[in-house]
Amino acid sequence: MKSILITGISGFVGGHFTRFIVNKKSDYVIHGLSRSKPAWDFIHNLDPILDAITFYQCDLLDSKKTNEIIERIQPDYILHLASFSSVSRSWGEPMTSFLNNTNAFLNIVEAVRTLDFNTKILSIGSSEEYGIVKESDLPINEKKHVAPANPYAVARVSEEYLAQIYANGYHLNICCTRSFNHIGPGQSDQFVVSSIAKQFAELAIYHKKPVIRIGSGSIIRDFIDIEDVIRAYDAILEKGISGEVYNVCSGRGNSINDIVNSLSELTHIPVVVEQNQNLFRPIDNPVLIGNYGKLQTTTGWKPECPIENSLEKIHSYWLNKLS
Amino acid sequence: MKSILITGISGFVGGHFTRFIVNKKSDYVIHGLSRSKPAWDFIHNLDPILDAITFYQCDLLDSKKTNEIIERIQPDYILHLASFSSVSRSWGEPMTSFLNNTNAFLNIVEAVRTLDFNTKILSIGSSEEYGIVKESDLPINEKKHVAPANPYAVARVSEEYLAQIYANGYHLNICCTRSFNHIGPGQSDQFVVSSIAKQFAELAIYHKKPVIRIGSGSIIRDFIDIEDVIRAYDAILEKGISGEVYNVCSGRGNSINDIVNSLSELTHIPVVVEQNQNLFRPIDNPVLIGNYGKLQTTTGWKPECPIENSLEKIHSYWLNKLS
Repeated sequence: MKSILITGISGFVGGHFTRFIVNKKSDYVIHGLSRSKPAWDFIHNLDPILDAITFYQCDLLDSKKTNEIIERIQPDYILHLASFSSVSRSWGEPMTSFLNNTNAFLNIVEAVRTLDFNTKILSIGSSEEYGIVKESDLPINEKKHVAPANPYAVARVSEEYLAQIYANGYHLNICCTRSFNHIGPGQSDQFVVSSIAKQFAELAIYHKKPVIRIGSGSIIRDFIDIEDVIRAYDAILEKGISGEVYNVCSGRGNSINDIVNSLSELTHIPVVVEQNQNLFRPIDNPVLIGNYGKLQTTTGWKPECPIENSLEKIHSYWLNKLS
Repeated sequence: MKSILITGISGFVGGHFTRFIVNKKSDYVIHGLSRSKPAWDFIHNLDPILDAITFYQCDLLDSKKTNEIIERIQPDYILHLASFSSVSRSWGEPMTSFLNNTNAFLNIVEAVRTLDFNTKILSIGSSEEYGIVKESDLPINEKKHVAPANPYAVARVSEEYLAQIYANGYHLNICCTRSFNHIGPGQSDQFVVSSIAKQFAELAIYHKKPVIRIGSGSIIRDFIDIEDVIRAYDAILEKGISGEVYNVCSGRGNSINDIVNSLSELTHIPVVVEQNQNLFRPIDNPVLIGNYGKLQTTTGWKPECPIENSLEKIHSYWLNKLS
């Protein structure tokens, strides 16, 4: 049997990853850590999933408790999902963002280092680390120098540098990702695709005026389905090379307007788009698309889910949730 | 009158900077913060210097107390010298290094941000941020991408990224340095030049066997006199452009063997050099020399003290201290 500790298990990615492990890896003992108990509304037949987890309520900034939990579990793997992952909130609470990303991670790797465990750790980073990139650098690969332009991105870059020091200097087994925009059922409507899908579900259910409110419609992002993300994280935990950083992305670019149009076709609801200046970010990439060649070469992983399938799943989630 | 808060005032740089301000800037009110009271053994006529300071005993990781002190002082300037600055100790205590560099700095800038003060802040970084550099990049300038290769350097890079976010995102007035190897009287003998000068003083006083113990003799560093460093920090506080990073360096390269030879000539003591493998670092730059063009262009500053003068001052300091 192998043991895995999933931090931030109660979140969107945590739920999808846990279901994946329960369904696909019968030889895994799952330990979950979070500040609050899991209550995933996007998982059908939830009880067997919850039953498969040993849950630890813990704030990762509590280094003593974090250390005790890791010592008790002696995990073969740690998937470190716990994060303060909102860019916009990081501007309002830069200290909270930094502590709950960088310092939380530091507590985990310090525990593994001082306990001298052989744990394979996956540190989740973000495409935000690249900052503003030139179109000639697209699709962006991992050789591009990072240039963090918001507090969240700084925290992620700091975490990545720490991961590399712990991997190369202390010989811990750590891989890092720079994960691009995830999409999938269960994601908060603070994220753009989830917000748009929710608005379409509201149109269908409440017969509201067919207006969709977005920020900038023209920006293009690399949206990757949560199931592809989960398989990527599993592949890196199994086959990733310590000290290396991997883009987790679809390699595709879709504008926000594309997302609206696809959902309009899917739902057969013609809509009017209203762009809300308040949702524009002061500095942002017009286009951000990743290159997943390194991850594919190392692990064989590649993205499989077309964006239309993702949108259909997300729309269904909101229809169920709101009905 | 202008008020300046000097963090880490009790250290080597803090003492030299405080003496400079007391002697040169009669319109400054000096507030000093440190975990321990200043007791500089390298300053003659110390009492008037100490009398000129309002001292606050504080650990900068205590964010509440840090905030209260900054609120009370309303400083026009903050020179943030407090640091856990040993590379080798950072390998043994990576967490302590990170917290006492990055998080301490974060507490300061958060205080200034939330208090909405107009304080000019100088964040001191290190040439360690550059990591391993190619000889073709020498003398290295600020456009070179950072590549931190030890825990101390990671903490410094994280601090610099945070500084830029606070400068560009929140419009705080912050400059950063990447300071190269300081040398001067009062520096701990954990630093190579101070250690060699101390050994020469011991030879003269105790008539020991004329052997000087060093790590690698061939490595070349950019050693800059503490008086030049102090004038650089003053120049950046006065004229530095917010959000910018400045190398503080001499532009000269001297090997460790050069230092030994110069001190041998100065003291007229022929010596045998013993290289101690334990003092070698596993990964290190054979040569590191900085380019100070950006700082000179912006402020007019340039280094003035020849290395022989520095060595003479440091040797005298040890002679006095050990006699």
